Amino acid sequence: MPPITLSTDFGPGSPYVAAMKGVILGINPAATIVDLTHAIPPQDVRQGGLFLAGVTHWFPADTIHVAVVDPGVGTKRRIIYARIGDQHYIAPDNGLLSRLTTRKQPLRVVSLDNSEHWLPEISATFHGRDIMAPVAAQISLGLNPEKLGARQPSLFQLNWPEPQVNPGGIAGTVLSIDSFGNLMTDIEQEHLRSVPAADLRIECGGEIIQGLARTYGEHSDGALVALIGSAGFLEIAVVRGSAARQLGAAVGAPVTLSW
Amino acid sequence: MPPITLSTDFGPGSPYVAAMKGVILGINPAATIVDLTHAIPPQDVRQGGLFLAGVTHWFPADTIHVAVVDPGVGTKRRIIYARIGDQHYIAPDNGLLSRLTTRKQPLRVVSLDNSEHWLPEISATFHGRDIMAPVAAQISLGLNPEKLGARQPSLFQLNWPEPQVNPGGIAGTVLSIDSFGNLMTDIEQEHLRSVPAADLRIECGGEIIQGLARTYGEHSDGALVALIGSAGFLEIAVVRGSAARQLGAAVGAPVTLSW
Amino acid sequence: MPPITLSTDFGPGSPYVAAMKGVILGINPAATIVDLTHAIPPQDVRQGGLFLAGVTHWFPADTIHVAVVDPGVGTKRRIIYARIGDQHYIAPDNGLLSRLTTRKQPLRVVSLDNSEHWLPEISATFHGRDIMAPVAAQISLGLNPEKLGARQPSLFQLNWPEPQVNPGGIAGTVLSIDSFGNLMTDIEQEHLRSVPAADLRIECGGEIIQGLARTYGEHSDGALVALIGSAGFLEIAVVRGSAARQLGAAVGAPVTLSW
Repeated sequence: MPPITLSTDFGPGSPYVAAMKGVILGINPAATIVDLTHAIPPQDVRQGGLFLAGVTHWFPADTIHVAVVDPGVGTKRRIIYARIGDQHYIAPDNGLLSRLTTRKQPLRVVSLDNSEHWLPEISATFHGRDIMAPVAAQISLGLNPEKLGARQPSLFQLNWPEPQVNPGGIAGTVLSIDSFGNLMTDIEQEHLRSVPAADLRIECGGEIIQGLARTYGEHSDGALVALIGSAGFLEIAVVRGSAARQLGAAVGAPVTLSW
Repeated sequence: MPPITLSTDFGPGSPYVAAMKGVILGINPAATIVDLTHAIPPQDVRQGGLFLAGVTHWFPADTIHVAVVDPGVGTKRRIIYARIGDQHYIAPDNGLLSRLTTRKQPLRVVSLDNSEHWLPEISATFHGRDIMAPVAAQISLGLNPEKLGARQPSLFQLNWPEPQVNPGGIAGTVLSIDSFGNLMTDIEQEHLRSVPAADLRIECGGEIIQGLARTYGEHSDGALVALIGSAGFLEIAVVRGSAARQLGAAVGAPVTLSW
Repeated sequence: MPPITLSTDFGPGSPYVAAMKGVILGINPAATIVDLTHAIPPQDVRQGGLFLAGVTHWFPADTIHVAVVDPGVGTKRRIIYARIGDQHYIAPDNGLLSRLTTRKQPLRVVSLDNSEHWLPEISATFHGRDIMAPVAAQISLGLNPEKLGARQPSLFQLNWPEPQVNPGGIAGTVLSIDSFGNLMTDIEQEHLRSVPAADLRIECGGEIIQGLARTYGEHSDGALVALIGSAGFLEIAVVRGSAARQLGAAVGAPVTLSW
């Protein structure tokens, strides 16, 4: 039986998370529920999208990922099921799944409009509990996602900025910041394959870093370093410190490479 | 085998939570442990009580809910098992279960005084680990709760304020605040059934809201709205913002309705 | 099948935690994953070590504890498997397991150098995902830890300060602070067995406490008390308040007992 993962902006320990777990177990008492995160910044669909794209491919085939960052709950935005790669996703169609599809086309998108798979009473403000949780539980029990509603040609796309690659340089962006204060950029390892690591000059937050490090621990405490992070993207870090704090850098800050 | 849920004020990642999980799995290695919350404000029995009343009824029949907000640990306060609705509860008898029983009488209350079901050594400061966790694990393995100790006629009641309903108005209270900064009140949907939504005038924190919204997303960002939340109670929210911050409102703030 | 526990400094809801869960379930879809903590202060090996020593012995025999507080990731520090007591541990060999071995010698230490049990591609900055998670999943499926690499004579030891016990007094230290603000010291119950509780004089943060309390709730709100905590160590607390805040005390603060 495939696991059901939960990724939300509800905050750790929120009653909304607890209610979703109750609904899932009420339908499938043997479900394996896996908390991925409940710490997406409130209503930040973009950070939610980056989170899902960064981690869900590690799960076994047919894992059911439920993602709730849903500022438009109760309005006309659809809720969708999508098959992307070998995974199942259930989310509001507000772009939350759109970072996953920048590389991989969804194999199938279905709009959740068949209310027979929902809770009997639907609130206007909590479709994670009333629609997404029961649908996920039923898929884990074998429900064919085609029964959920009508096929859709595509899902809603957010505009994801692409780094500007020029001969001699790249202009990128800080996409997210992890709990260590490391700055995760949109510049990929493959962009840099032909550049000798020592020749790289990285500029961010008014500071300049010369060359790429391989890992944090090879530099001394407090050193500002750039390296290829564990997801294959350029990352800016302060060894045993916080690059976000030291550089005063936030999501969206520009990162400029030259060589 | 019914799941065991944990709701505490220990803080996420607390060693006290980890110890309880270890004790449960040590007795029943096949137990399904579900984290509900570890973010109840420290020693806030009232918020713990509201949390339990808001979410535990979503769980399948016979789920075992262990709740630890226990400032009186080691004193004469009892620890109790209660059957409320179709769920099992284990908690200190300090009012933590009393919000659950404002509507539904407990079917059975048992005082946990039979030490043969506890850990062999009992500390004076951590009965969650030493008494509640082992008892929950044994109930999940089929132990009859009647064996835990003596029947009790009732459980300890906190004084839960009731909204004052008058012809033409209601005086209510902010009961809790969620992670989005939404203010959850004690005014129920059914109090308002006979009032046209557009006629309602809601006053809180010095601001006045005219009429009820249906959901957040139908108003523009920053709008202050009142609506019936997903648990059936009146809720005050700022669209994509925090009503708690904007109104400077805390738990206990008065909310006045008139029409 | 033994459970796999996770203890990290990644922060609750971190994508790094999610990736590790995905890798584990990808190898063993039936694995039981138990979150112990993701709230170890970033890169604080010492607090991680205290956490593990405080809670892992509560778990059933053969539980697999994966611990990631790893500032030296990608450098020459080894990753080890250790059998300590009846539990399995997987961690960087940076002292994270060394508080566990102050009393109990490890029965076996193996260096994880056999890459056939790792993910196919190894990053330089995230061995929790690439090495520790897959190894843990395989042990849960029955892999003999001897196959992981070469036996090691010992593991890396941190210097853990011991309280100075003199006739008539003890000089100890605050080792950690819990989420209630209670100060946990390194002074053990057994150090005090021969001293009448009422004769003890405890000094910390410029304040003096006379005598030992048995539990929090027997004193009035705001009282500063000392007691033997649930792990058997002397603890300083403020009833329904925070001793850390009231005394301005941090980890490392001296605690002096006399009688």
